Amino acid sequence: MTVQWSSGTDLHLELDPEQPRSGPALAEALRGAIRAGRLAAGQSVPSTRALAADLGIARGTVTRVYEQLRIEGFLQSRQGAATTVAARVPVPDPAGAGRSAVVPTTLRWSLEPGLPDVSAFPRLDWLAAGRRALAELPADALGHGSDPLGQPRLRAVLADYLGRTRGVLADPSRTVICAGYAHGLSLLAQLLAQRGPFGFEDPSLQLHRRIVTGAGVRVVGLPVDRDGAQVSGSAAGVVVVTPAHQYPLGHTLSPERRAALAAGGPAVVIEDDYDGEFRYDRRPVGALQALAPDRVVYAGTSSKTLAPGLRLGWLVLPPSLVGPMSALLRRAESRVSVLDQLTLAELIRSGGYDRQVRRMRAVYRARRDRVLELVRRRGDPVTVAGIAAGLHLVLRLPPGGPTEAELRATCARHDLAVQTLDRHWLPGSPEPRPTGLIIGYGAPAGHAFGPALRALDRSLTDLF
Amino acid sequence: MTVQWSSGTDLHLELDPEQPRSGPALAEALRGAIRAGRLAAGQSVPSTRALAADLGIARGTVTRVYEQLRIEGFLQSRQGAATTVAARVPVPDPAGAGRSAVVPTTLRWSLEPGLPDVSAFPRLDWLAAGRRALAELPADALGHGSDPLGQPRLRAVLADYLGRTRGVLADPSRTVICAGYAHGLSLLAQLLAQRGPFGFEDPSLQLHRRIVTGAGVRVVGLPVDRDGAQVSGSAAGVVVVTPAHQYPLGHTLSPERRAALAAGGPAVVIEDDYDGEFRYDRRPVGALQALAPDRVVYAGTSSKTLAPGLRLGWLVLPPSLVGPMSALLRRAESRVSVLDQLTLAELIRSGGYDRQVRRMRAVYRARRDRVLELVRRRGDPVTVAGIAAGLHLVLRLPPGGPTEAELRATCARHDLAVQTLDRHWLPGSPEPRPTGLIIGYGAPAGHAFGPALRALDRSLTDLF
Repeated sequence: MTVQWSSGTDLHLELDPEQPRSGPALAEALRGAIRAGRLAAGQSVPSTRALAADLGIARGTVTRVYEQLRIEGFLQSRQGAATTVAARVPVPDPAGAGRSAVVPTTLRWSLEPGLPDVSAFPRLDWLAAGRRALAELPADALGHGSDPLGQPRLRAVLADYLGRTRGVLADPSRTVICAGYAHGLSLLAQLLAQRGPFGFEDPSLQLHRRIVTGAGVRVVGLPVDRDGAQVSGSAAGVVVVTPAHQYPLGHTLSPERRAALAAGGPAVVIEDDYDGEFRYDRRPVGALQALAPDRVVYAGTSSKTLAPGLRLGWLVLPPSLVGPMSALLRRAESRVSVLDQLTLAELIRSGGYDRQVRRMRAVYRARRDRVLELVRRRGDPVTVAGIAAGLHLVLRLPPGGPTEAELRATCARHDLAVQTLDRHWLPGSPEPRPTGLIIGYGAPAGHAFGPALRALDRSLTDLF
Repeated sequence: MTVQWSSGTDLHLELDPEQPRSGPALAEALRGAIRAGRLAAGQSVPSTRALAADLGIARGTVTRVYEQLRIEGFLQSRQGAATTVAARVPVPDPAGAGRSAVVPTTLRWSLEPGLPDVSAFPRLDWLAAGRRALAELPADALGHGSDPLGQPRLRAVLADYLGRTRGVLADPSRTVICAGYAHGLSLLAQLLAQRGPFGFEDPSLQLHRRIVTGAGVRVVGLPVDRDGAQVSGSAAGVVVVTPAHQYPLGHTLSPERRAALAAGGPAVVIEDDYDGEFRYDRRPVGALQALAPDRVVYAGTSSKTLAPGLRLGWLVLPPSLVGPMSALLRRAESRVSVLDQLTLAELIRSGGYDRQVRRMRAVYRARRDRVLELVRRRGDPVTVAGIAAGLHLVLRLPPGGPTEAELRATCARHDLAVQTLDRHWLPGSPEPRPTGLIIGYGAPAGHAFGPALRALDRSLTDLF
């Protein structure tokens, strides 16, 4: 449609005809107009009031869209001056959709999984640990670093920490620092490419499977039931599993399956312990790695305990992989800042990391309880799964109930971003597939959790 | 040989028979004994005095070897207690020698190239910038990050900085943050693998060539003369050059060669501007990239201006590569800490980065002048090259003079680590090759530069 622009000229905005009054449609139309040059650099945009009136949509929606485009770099504003089109505009991303928790959303509330509450990042503790690390730092540590596996000090502190908290049989010589789990997985894919296809749980995170296929390695599916992944009978030479809290379904790998996986089968098991620090039931589930340290790679991360933006993760390798990984990293050169490594080491050593984990475990547990309370109070025909650990749970819907597209659309109408199970299945996964809404209760900042939950409540009222 | 150990037992030490009294030989023998379990965890080692007497070597040598092994993690010592064998011992690196500036040396002084003076890292400015960055940080910046190319704020600040100081035609949408130059090069090798072989200057850094061959891409040599790299006639589809200060020879690419390279030839030129900030002559040499921004990738780094341990570098891409790089980074997800990115952005914005570069430029220029003064005063039959810029220069020796092995051995006898040209030639590089000593005057801490220079003086006296 064509709207009257603030300069008095008309502007053509290509609004999605299916939802012309939604925030995402307006945002995309504005991006398109700016990229196409119809809105030129430096040009003022109309007031939120004027544009809302022109388009017949809520002013709050326009305000949020402007803010979003400002963050993305399409618009700029200076205090006291009009908002204008930025001189330099972001390049469109031809890769298309990545991890959806990542893609900016213009919905106001979000219960998307994949993120912790980053507003609770312990800024002061991190800064203080960084100050102490830098004060004690031998100057030559700032050089290229003689050990491609990471700073010895962090590796020693982590090996102790993982043994103490997760029961990992770690020792510093087998502990490797990487730039987050995705980096670690990409290294493992390069290292293990010759061991045959990688087995991934079906469902699992598409982003991780893409990292492996991107390294030229074939991926096969491992069915998941209430006991976790079924590995026996798989052709995979390497399997990637989430034993403590299956992602996304939330199940814990059963003791029988753990024992079987530890006893034999694939040559290498990659244990993605992405949220193992957050466990709410009384039966702590230690790392699978301790049952077969010669075959299991343990992979952990600070993405859930601190923040994904730190890009800090770790692997504990079987002895046979230490040499090859060292050679690979020496060729590729280590990726992680020495200062960050030593800051994390100091944060763990000083007890600040444990304190943060304990504090957030209580916060997330309380949030989980509020979701459970809502579901029980409502009495909808849903079953809840995956509540024993982590930052997400799953509401499974009965056959014949609302579809996952309806779930997402209904929540979006209540300004709530959610994810469903559908995107996590492997291609060719057997039908029928269960219908489920993944509730990521970790991500909202404290003040936003209540409103997000109320939006979920209203959405469920519309659905049932 | 067998030495009497402090416990009264005998210990077999395998000392290099060619230099049984050298520090490196003792260090390697001790490492071997510890790895082989002949020296067990927790066991005390003899006093430096006793071991020196047993072996007939200088006590200072034993002291330095113990200190080195302590840093490497083989030994440990607590205040007031005896030095003992560490409970956990580093794993030997089967990959063999990497970048030699990186491999710990037991020589006391070093003029090896490849490092800045990391003792001059602006710790307080970095901490203050980090504090401000963290205070202003929107919480959602700590999430996964919506832009795989890096934090928009750092990209904007860097684009301005590179335009201002290096004449790069940069804009934020084409500016990419990577985890140092080696990471950037590895991304480019993946991206450009289909464009035919990569041409590398002959001589150049072996580590960089290995990154490219490790990505499955063939490498061919580009001869280098006083005018820099000769690209015309090469079969390379992509060339990697160091126009401002050829590494290691030190030449500046001549205006004619620059113009020719900008006008045509290889499809893509990677400009490795590793030390472009440190220029001492009156003719500032801007980036080659400005002559052909549609074909030249500009690559810069904080490794020389701040410290390699930060693992922070950047690329400015031709427009045609932005989309493919974005897709590659979205898939690989190996990104740099958001906090580090925003800290660097704040350091540049606040002027602290410029101040550090100016300050260190004066320091390095004064060091270079002292090396030149030494060479002129001595009047040895050497010619000096590469003095206009950077952190290293080359002493070229006449044919028939000392060999490079003799240069290294003589300097080592004076406790000075140096590098020579030999390791930088490509396999099959035409003979005869020039003989040259690379003097890296950047790396020593302030207090160590004078002694290192005096060791060089004594070595040259032995050689000529």
